[in-house]
Amino acid sequence: MMARLTSSSAPVRQSNVRAHNLALALHTVANSADPMSRSAVAATTGLTRATVSALVDELVAGGLLTELDPPPRTGAGRPAVGLTLSATGPAGLGLEINVDYLAACVVDLTGAVRHRFIEHADQRPAGPYAALSALGRLGARARLAAKADGLVVVGATLAVPGLVSTGFVLQAPNLGWQNVDAPALLRGLPELADLPITVDNEANLAALGELRVTGTEPTFLYVSGEIGIGAGLVIDGELYRGARGWSGEIGHVTVFPDGPPCRCGAAGCLEQYAGQEALAEDEPRAAAALGIALSAVVNLLDVPAIVLGGVYATYFDRLREGIEAELRRRVLTSELAPVTLRAARLGTNAAVRGAADTAVQQVRDDPAVWLRRAG
Amino acid sequence: MMARLTSSSAPVRQSNVRAHNLALALHTVANSADPMSRSAVAATTGLTRATVSALVDELVAGGLLTELDPPPRTGAGRPAVGLTLSATGPAGLGLEINVDYLAACVVDLTGAVRHRFIEHADQRPAGPYAALSALGRLGARARLAAKADGLVVVGATLAVPGLVSTGFVLQAPNLGWQNVDAPALLRGLPELADLPITVDNEANLAALGELRVTGTEPTFLYVSGEIGIGAGLVIDGELYRGARGWSGEIGHVTVFPDGPPCRCGAAGCLEQYAGQEALAEDEPRAAAALGIALSAVVNLLDVPAIVLGGVYATYFDRLREGIEAELRRRVLTSELAPVTLRAARLGTNAAVRGAADTAVQQVRDDPAVWLRRAG
Repeated sequence: MMARLTSSSAPVRQSNVRAHNLALALHTVANSADPMSRSAVAATTGLTRATVSALVDELVAGGLLTELDPPPRTGAGRPAVGLTLSATGPAGLGLEINVDYLAACVVDLTGAVRHRFIEHADQRPAGPYAALSALGRLGARARLAAKADGLVVVGATLAVPGLVSTGFVLQAPNLGWQNVDAPALLRGLPELADLPITVDNEANLAALGELRVTGTEPTFLYVSGEIGIGAGLVIDGELYRGARGWSGEIGHVTVFPDGPPCRCGAAGCLEQYAGQEALAEDEPRAAAALGIALSAVVNLLDVPAIVLGGVYATYFDRLREGIEAELRRRVLTSELAPVTLRAARLGTNAAVRGAADTAVQQVRDDPAVWLRRAG
Repeated sequence: MMARLTSSSAPVRQSNVRAHNLALALHTVANSADPMSRSAVAATTGLTRATVSALVDELVAGGLLTELDPPPRTGAGRPAVGLTLSATGPAGLGLEINVDYLAACVVDLTGAVRHRFIEHADQRPAGPYAALSALGRLGARARLAAKADGLVVVGATLAVPGLVSTGFVLQAPNLGWQNVDAPALLRGLPELADLPITVDNEANLAALGELRVTGTEPTFLYVSGEIGIGAGLVIDGELYRGARGWSGEIGHVTVFPDGPPCRCGAAGCLEQYAGQEALAEDEPRAAAALGIALSAVVNLLDVPAIVLGGVYATYFDRLREGIEAELRRRVLTSELAPVTLRAARLGTNAAVRGAADTAVQQVRDDPAVWLRRAG
């Protein structure tokens, strides 16, 4: 009953107000393309100048905002001092394991990639323990490089091609993994032992990476084409995870109910027609199958934009027409408003970049917690 | 950039704090199965007793809460005075047009149905103007009956079997309607001229009706089986509408890409196999088609529960096995956690009841606005 009032689940107290307004001030500066004056922050937020100044002082002292000096006076007028997000201070560590590579990445508060390390090698023979140890060493190198820049890594996020639940990798079929406590294995390395480490599906994190880079498109489906096919659904700027975190399994949406068997036990799954191997064999059929599955998504969810990532981004120009033909035919509202189809802006590093950004997100969402810890 | 902080889009000021806390107090009483004492409200919300008493006094004076007198003393102890939602005061008017009936319904703040009127007749020959005039007269009767009970109808919501956008019925193919400004036609009746009237898709409103009645299941897909098939997706107690309000078109999800043509222009849509007519002809095939389309929903969205409404509720026992067989086979995570499938609790009045409840929802969500108007 009245479940819609979830945002009212806590009373508003003074300490909450301060935390809320710190986040609001940080958010306002982050959303501005140019450096922002304190009075511009006050005007945008509706807070008084005195309140804004107190909040900004805290955020500058805590290393979250930087106040740029005005340029030398050239005569006419005095340019405003500008606030920007700090490029030193907190940072996030992204880690990724995939079938044929390991990656680590550091992203600062501004969203910029500061360091990136990749090791190409087949990860299947190694097994979880050896693979995650090697990834941990890569992460430790990235953390060291971040430290040399004056950055403080506040947490790490691991991207895996599989189903994740409460920190466990339940299934990563293309790696041959089942029930792996990946964060615990990573924390086994002394250099990462103190770090909060979370784990998430790679398509989810790639979708978040794409969101962070493009920004203007708040609702879209990101489809990641690899050996398997995954999807990340972003609604109003938030990743939709599903009830248990298992949303986005578009690779196992049925396209032809009587089609060939899939390794999942079903038949006629999208992966059988548009996975990396099937795509190499028959591009038009892959495009049609993608179009049929994506039409289902749009009919169900009224998603206005679809972003094709992974190998689909590379093949985009060759797949586009075949996909759009199915969307035009099968989406009920296609004549009222067509669906935007585009290639992902980020290449194969979308997932690790999204992972790193997720790790530093906590500081942007609740700067008061970071300030308390840092102070 | 940083779109996740949308809840921080306004600064917290004193007037906001009061509005927030009024909603919180009302919400707390509404969520309680039994009458609640003021001190219980304080304990649950974390607000001080003095603050709660001031808030409760306002809500009682404004007709939103009722304070029950204690029962006569029987000796041992003194029972607490109990607060409940008021059964007089604001109410919502639900209106529904469907292919073969018109309905009007009044729901009070507690969610109880107070009045319900139905007229059975084929609405297609009448056209939008005559049909909505007849519905408006039914609504006026319901409003008069509500007034006689001491209720104040604060708004009306119209349920239609079609696509809706910014108050317009864009398409209601089974009625033969296109681009109908339904609220304007309803307000043409003097008895409804002063009422805020919104319009929504019937499956969406039926899903909200089901949510309101069951309460305990915050995330589910409601599927409404009629001549057409619609769906309403409820996520964490909120209806998901999609970018333009056109989500839930499950009737046009492709089941067999090379199947028979659909009136929408595509081929092999779910409606061709599981719409009311097809269902009457071949139940097992309808169940399999429903199972295939619902498997796509679960793979994409990780929805833990599916509620079958409309004619599917009537046929539930006969459809269940066929649907569940496909879910077991085609949902990737079916072995990790099965999907709950159940018949809707509300019958064919789900949509009009949900519509009425939606109309009074505004008062529950923001009681401060109501108190300002009433005072």
